[in-house]
Amino acid sequence: MTELKVASRDPATLETAPTRYVEAGGIRFAYRQLGPSTGTPLVLLQHFSGNIDAWDPAVVNALAADRPVIAFDNAGVGRSTGQTPDSVAAMARDAVTFIGLLGFAKVDLLGYSLGGCVAQQIAAEHGQLVRKLILVGTAPQGGEEHLLAVLKEAFSHKEAPDPRLPLFFTQSAGSQAAGKAFLDRVYARKEDRDTDGGSAVTDPQAKALITWCATPDPEHAMLRAIKQPALVVCGSNDTMLPADNAYAMFKGLSNAQLVLYPDSGHGALFQHHEAFVSHVRTFLDA
Amino acid sequence: MTELKVASRDPATLETAPTRYVEAGGIRFAYRQLGPSTGTPLVLLQHFSGNIDAWDPAVVNALAADRPVIAFDNAGVGRSTGQTPDSVAAMARDAVTFIGLLGFAKVDLLGYSLGGCVAQQIAAEHGQLVRKLILVGTAPQGGEEHLLAVLKEAFSHKEAPDPRLPLFFTQSAGSQAAGKAFLDRVYARKEDRDTDGGSAVTDPQAKALITWCATPDPEHAMLRAIKQPALVVCGSNDTMLPADNAYAMFKGLSNAQLVLYPDSGHGALFQHHEAFVSHVRTFLDA
Repeated sequence: MTELKVASRDPATLETAPTRYVEAGGIRFAYRQLGPSTGTPLVLLQHFSGNIDAWDPAVVNALAADRPVIAFDNAGVGRSTGQTPDSVAAMARDAVTFIGLLGFAKVDLLGYSLGGCVAQQIAAEHGQLVRKLILVGTAPQGGEEHLLAVLKEAFSHKEAPDPRLPLFFTQSAGSQAAGKAFLDRVYARKEDRDTDGGSAVTDPQAKALITWCATPDPEHAMLRAIKQPALVVCGSNDTMLPADNAYAMFKGLSNAQLVLYPDSGHGALFQHHEAFVSHVRTFLDA
Repeated sequence: MTELKVASRDPATLETAPTRYVEAGGIRFAYRQLGPSTGTPLVLLQHFSGNIDAWDPAVVNALAADRPVIAFDNAGVGRSTGQTPDSVAAMARDAVTFIGLLGFAKVDLLGYSLGGCVAQQIAAEHGQLVRKLILVGTAPQGGEEHLLAVLKEAFSHKEAPDPRLPLFFTQSAGSQAAGKAFLDRVYARKEDRDTDGGSAVTDPQAKALITWCATPDPEHAMLRAIKQPALVVCGSNDTMLPADNAYAMFKGLSNAQLVLYPDSGHGALFQHHEAFVSHVRTFLDA
């Protein structure tokens, strides 16, 4: 009996939490919620092609130690229904719909890569909904991207067990070892894993990200519309969305903190997960 | 008796610790040591014109909660004897002499402004002595500085109660309020305050800093000679040593983390002292 009690008190983790669903307007959103029920919820906005199980349990579980954390599939992604839109603005509308369905009036956003573009759009348009935002490995509107070239190069590495090793990590031994540890954590969940969507997801997502970066915004109107405190994070050697984007966002935002990590690529937040979690906590709790 | 015991167990603070002295080669170095006696000591290298009492007790005391922290006057500064040299290299030699006098075989360095140049020189030349270094509001060799222009402008503000308000903080209400709080902390110590040295200190120090920045190092040979992990920190609106220096150091160092703070000037570490202490701890404890 004691064992059962202890087990029932065990906090849910990204690997063990059940996938839940909420539905509105013909879209059923898949999500997992972790952490305590009180506090400002932290909503995670995922990268190009990623689903709920592409998040790093080391990051998500640690952040959920003292705040509600919600990972979800936006419309059309993973086990969410509906169509994946081909614009950041439409993705932002879907995400706001999802947040509303959960009944949250105020959230923090952690947007990673394409999800960071969506986070910027939401923060700029919904000043009341977003308290703080964390922008990781992402670009401002009109920013620099090398998505297609880097994807092509990554998928040419037939020997790599997962394209995320060349895509998210540098070629150093340390970064590659961190990448393998990340993949081990990502694949720890065996049951009820999220699904991949193929080109019905990645084609419109690629168009959305490329269009976002191809939309000139020399005056940084989008960044200037964001009034919330922001934490901007990037790896030193991000090949898809280079660190110059992060420095430009830091300078264009009115209230941003910048953190850049050494010897790291697009997956800097997973490689440096302990430092990243500490930095996010310091930022959110300030 | 109980009160006395409690008082004697009180940890020393920057405001209450006695100033101590060590001497060698005709130079008597003034210093204060805080924190536990075990752990890698963190040695603080001070900015242009600053002495031991120009450090922020909020930063120094918090860092000393779990490691030895040593604030000192380099040769010729404050109550240290000897002559203030006019080169960063000579200042580095004096600092290494001081560290040796305390018997430390391995230290962490926190170099601020001119002290950050000295920290780079020491780290590059003494790979065995330095474990990690923190470079705040500073410049690489050949970096960008606006020392004389900014000093002239700051001292033209006759209405400012202390030149550090215009020099170290932005003109925003929040930054100026943080500046006043910083000055209150700095002046909390009433007895046994450190002394100012006048132009015998500032003239050679200004020459050292300006020469450091005027020495071309397009290949960043100095940064490339630094193998230790480094944390590079700067304020968004540092007018003397702009944040572009920090970004350049991050890119030139082989193993650096970068943290930039919003709405802050040369005194970003004092304005954002809670975040700064958290970031330093996360970095040193990794």
